[in-house]
Amino acid sequence: MRGGVSTGSASGEVLVVGLGPGPEAWLTPEASSALAEVGHVVGYAPYVNRVPQREGLRRHASGNTVEVDRARHALDLAVAGERVAVVSGGDAGVFGMASAVFEAAEDPAYAGVRVRVLPGVSAVQAVAARAGAPVGADFAVMSLSDRLKPWSVVEDRLRAVAAADLVLAIYNPASRSRTEQIGRARDVLLEQRKPDTVVIVGRDIGRAEESLTVTTLGELDPASIDMKCLVIVGASSTRVTEAGQVWTPRYVR
Amino acid sequence: MRGGVSTGSASGEVLVVGLGPGPEAWLTPEASSALAEVGHVVGYAPYVNRVPQREGLRRHASGNTVEVDRARHALDLAVAGERVAVVSGGDAGVFGMASAVFEAAEDPAYAGVRVRVLPGVSAVQAVAARAGAPVGADFAVMSLSDRLKPWSVVEDRLRAVAAADLVLAIYNPASRSRTEQIGRARDVLLEQRKPDTVVIVGRDIGRAEESLTVTTLGELDPASIDMKCLVIVGASSTRVTEAGQVWTPRYVR
Repeated sequence: MRGGVSTGSASGEVLVVGLGPGPEAWLTPEASSALAEVGHVVGYAPYVNRVPQREGLRRHASGNTVEVDRARHALDLAVAGERVAVVSGGDAGVFGMASAVFEAAEDPAYAGVRVRVLPGVSAVQAVAARAGAPVGADFAVMSLSDRLKPWSVVEDRLRAVAAADLVLAIYNPASRSRTEQIGRARDVLLEQRKPDTVVIVGRDIGRAEESLTVTTLGELDPASIDMKCLVIVGASSTRVTEAGQVWTPRYVR
Repeated sequence: MRGGVSTGSASGEVLVVGLGPGPEAWLTPEASSALAEVGHVVGYAPYVNRVPQREGLRRHASGNTVEVDRARHALDLAVAGERVAVVSGGDAGVFGMASAVFEAAEDPAYAGVRVRVLPGVSAVQAVAARAGAPVGADFAVMSLSDRLKPWSVVEDRLRAVAAADLVLAIYNPASRSRTEQIGRARDVLLEQRKPDTVVIVGRDIGRAEESLTVTTLGELDPASIDMKCLVIVGASSTRVTEAGQVWTPRYVR
């Protein structure tokens, strides 16, 4: 048992809130209101730090790779009667904290705790908007991390997405310890996609230091990709305008 | 030539703005600010009608299936020096107007017109948040409409997504004239997915009349699906909590 409460008798609510990719201008009014009313904010430190400090708010910041511990902490606070929000960058439901909260909430100690997810603008949408309209047709969104799934699954999915000619948005293309995956992914995609397939690399989109690079699958330099990047690989129809904007036609001919 | 301007000499800007799925609480501050500053709003009538009327604003509402005409209208206004926003429900970059604007802007008459896309909360994110965290792992987003692509392409993509065990969000599952596709899609998915695969049907999510149904692929009734629905088909790991919330684990074991 956690939180000193008997199995089945827990109650309370955990909000899971997507903060968007960075600027206030992408934070929904719903999320703003919710964050103004909770007593606790729980999350990865850079996201928690984006919630303004105020009287009556306790901010609980944690490291990057302890999602389920962080979720349990929030659930414990809810069980204790506190009003608590778990925060994620982007949309909490897209490789954010929402799934981790449900994972932690499977523990019978948390039966009865309500989990409510508030959507936000995701990183893929922010990068796409800055680039033009690259996900304007059918697309897939994948995490390249093999921390939670075998690399063989990642490769199988990359092959399926390439064969189906879907646009592909890649989260977590690299981290400090994972630097080889994006090169391997490029090579797997090149088995079926042409080297001139359009690739967008968005880095820190929504922040002051943001940058956007348009390149091709053949010329993508794995060494240029780090954990601050989101990569979008176009479909065969994805094209670049004279002004350098990237879009994918809605039609397939 | 359009707009009476010589090829290559056009200028101006078209904003493409995602309004989110419905409520003001999901409209980003960036989109609100942009809409407060333009002189013209162009779009499908139900979306245009969501932009409050005010002095100095002209609202141009059009039908549902004339995206490129609508985009040209906006580009003509920009060439004429007007400040104009094209609006979409959800995120304009996800089966919204962004791609149609780039398509229309290929016309040399619009060379020099800048297109700027402002992201919004998409319908898939809204339905996912209401349901729990169904897109918490790798996923695909597809339109089931064969208005702009052959049905054979749709089927090939459905098979690839099913084989790769991606969560699948389905836009445009049906319309008044297209009622058979969702049943056919279900049958294609059932070639590789189990009948107990979790399915979410979100209808009018974000509006007063919203409803959310959790069912399975085997029990999905095609007759229950219309143009107001967005359908999410889970991965094999997608599960339903005792409270009826749906989530997909981040991990694959």
